[in-house]
Amino acid sequence: SSRGRASVKHTDSDSITVKVTPRVCCSICSDTKLKDPFSLAQKDLQNLYEDIKKQLLVSKAELKALCDYYFDGKGKAFRPMIVILMARACNVHSNKEGVLLPAQRSIAMISEMIHTASLVHDDVIDDSDTRRGKNTINQVWGERKAILAGDFILSAASMALARIGNTTVVSVLSQVIEDLVRGEFMQLGSKENENERFKHYLEKTFKKTASLIANSCKAVSILVNSDPEVHEIAYQYGRNVGIAFQLVDDILDFTSSAKRLGKPSAADLRLGLATGPVLFACQQFPELHAMIMRRFSSDGDVDRAWQYVLKSDGVEQTNYLAQHYCQEAIHQISRLRPSTERDALIQLTELVLRRDK
Amino acid sequence: SSRGRASVKHTDSDSITVKVTPRVCCSICSDTKLKDPFSLAQKDLQNLYEDIKKQLLVSKAELKALCDYYFDGKGKAFRPMIVILMARACNVHSNKEGVLLPAQRSIAMISEMIHTASLVHDDVIDDSDTRRGKNTINQVWGERKAILAGDFILSAASMALARIGNTTVVSVLSQVIEDLVRGEFMQLGSKENENERFKHYLEKTFKKTASLIANSCKAVSILVNSDPEVHEIAYQYGRNVGIAFQLVDDILDFTSSAKRLGKPSAADLRLGLATGPVLFACQQFPELHAMIMRRFSSDGDVDRAWQYVLKSDGVEQTNYLAQHYCQEAIHQISRLRPSTERDALIQLTELVLRRDK
Repeated sequence: SSRGRASVKHTDSDSITVKVTPRVCCSICSDTKLKDPFSLAQKDLQNLYEDIKKQLLVSKAELKALCDYYFDGKGKAFRPMIVILMARACNVHSNKEGVLLPAQRSIAMISEMIHTASLVHDDVIDDSDTRRGKNTINQVWGERKAILAGDFILSAASMALARIGNTTVVSVLSQVIEDLVRGEFMQLGSKENENERFKHYLEKTFKKTASLIANSCKAVSILVNSDPEVHEIAYQYGRNVGIAFQLVDDILDFTSSAKRLGKPSAADLRLGLATGPVLFACQQFPELHAMIMRRFSSDGDVDRAWQYVLKSDGVEQTNYLAQHYCQEAIHQISRLRPSTERDALIQLTELVLRRDK
Repeated sequence: SSRGRASVKHTDSDSITVKVTPRVCCSICSDTKLKDPFSLAQKDLQNLYEDIKKQLLVSKAELKALCDYYFDGKGKAFRPMIVILMARACNVHSNKEGVLLPAQRSIAMISEMIHTASLVHDDVIDDSDTRRGKNTINQVWGERKAILAGDFILSAASMALARIGNTTVVSVLSQVIEDLVRGEFMQLGSKENENERFKHYLEKTFKKTASLIANSCKAVSILVNSDPEVHEIAYQYGRNVGIAFQLVDDILDFTSSAKRLGKPSAADLRLGLATGPVLFACQQFPELHAMIMRRFSSDGDVDRAWQYVLKSDGVEQTNYLAQHYCQEAIHQISRLRPSTERDALIQLTELVLRRDK
């Protein structure tokens, strides 16, 4: 990404042409007004993966390789980035403008560790082969070691959390770990009633994705001792962005090809999961109901369901819903005092909606 | 178990015969002098499993059944019992004689939850069918749900821990969770060098069994703000008793029949694990070395190794080693001020050595 840059070009005449390269946000969106959230957080995120690997101290070389596997620096660091920006935006409210507390950076790190630990176990549970374009840990080292690696990363995250030494923050992030498991469990069940099914889906989405972002945002606010109202804004921003992020993820599972996403698409259908696009499609094509109930387990269900979704406005509707959550996130964060980071968090909602991988 | 009881029997003459029923410790041992540690802790342990189940609040009936499965009140509650007695013994040092802090009882509860969560994952990793005479969770509900149940119990334990609101205690028990995983990982490897193998075995034993007991004992001492020296005594007692407990467990795997133990015996050999009795036997019968290295994976290895162990003095030597650790535990705990609970903890080392299931 590049900030606005003016290049001065001398011509053979005396007149000078000033050519302004528009300041573009980043490769994903083309907003020219705001600063790219990723580059704004970049400095604080430097060596994040190195620091995570330092938390995963193990003498056994193999365990080390396993635990480090996803911390290869190729992740988007989406969660840590939000956490960093939120920390700096909240700090303005406590006369700590321009400061990032070491404990706040630890939360950014811990959020990525908790996220990764849950991915490792999810991949065992789903028997997934690929993740971020790599083979999964369970695929390379087997299930047993993958279970242990997930446990280990999570315990290292708990240790790092304990070292921060703030009991409220410990509670807030322990809640996340519980939510992640509850969300994964909710995913195992199918709901008969359609209304209940949608509520169930959004609750699962909160627990599996948004709780981590919401509570990490809340934690960095708590750490700087800001107003409880600020904690709530931070939490609500994270909750809404988190749900929108997952809704877009669920859309991409239908619209993105396997190569771009780094994982096979229609993966959710193959796992028996009915996400937003299918649930909306079911309102237009009630034939989907039976397939949802049997978790797309009959021959040809996955392909048929996929076709119904593409014929329906399920993707569009899910996108509208994601937009709604982003608007609410913007509404919340706008209540904070102005700061570059606050504006970057507003900008981030655009990235969430526009991302295509 | 019964405390000393005198029954007065009137005879037809004027003489009165006083018949004293000796105060026996419990069904396992027959020491007549000391109070049975289990009955001494009984009152504090009342409703322990009910209280644990209250921590595992889930709306989903199936998840509830799964998470409650091992908290059926049929466990020995060995860890909570030690924790309760240690708490009361430490409290004497802080002029809190006769008191048990609610947070200390929480530690007793949390210790059982962490222990159980680790069993649930271990059973998935080892593909075990039975545990405590019941089918394992992975056997009844499958691996996926067993992984989640373990994660859920552990997260509930972390939540309960966070609620205590003492950051040192959070650190101390987070260390346990890390040790449990490291210990399980160590178990996957074989060491070539015999000396290194023994050191490796004892380190694994500390991490997999003793760390939880040692650090829970330390935590209840910290909670009453006793002297750091008392924390260290509590920790060392737990460490030594914990190692002895596991050594005896490893002996029972060779000497107890499947029915008594509630799990198939020689289970360790079948899992490829060389425990104390085999490692000692290998000093007498170097033929065992190759079998240890291939983790008893060739046809007939398990039976052959078993025979060598029974021919050797491996069981006896392991028992000596367990006695040594118990003596050290007694040495440590004797440094505490006198109390019924302190004496019960001394007595407990006898139970650890004499138990046959």
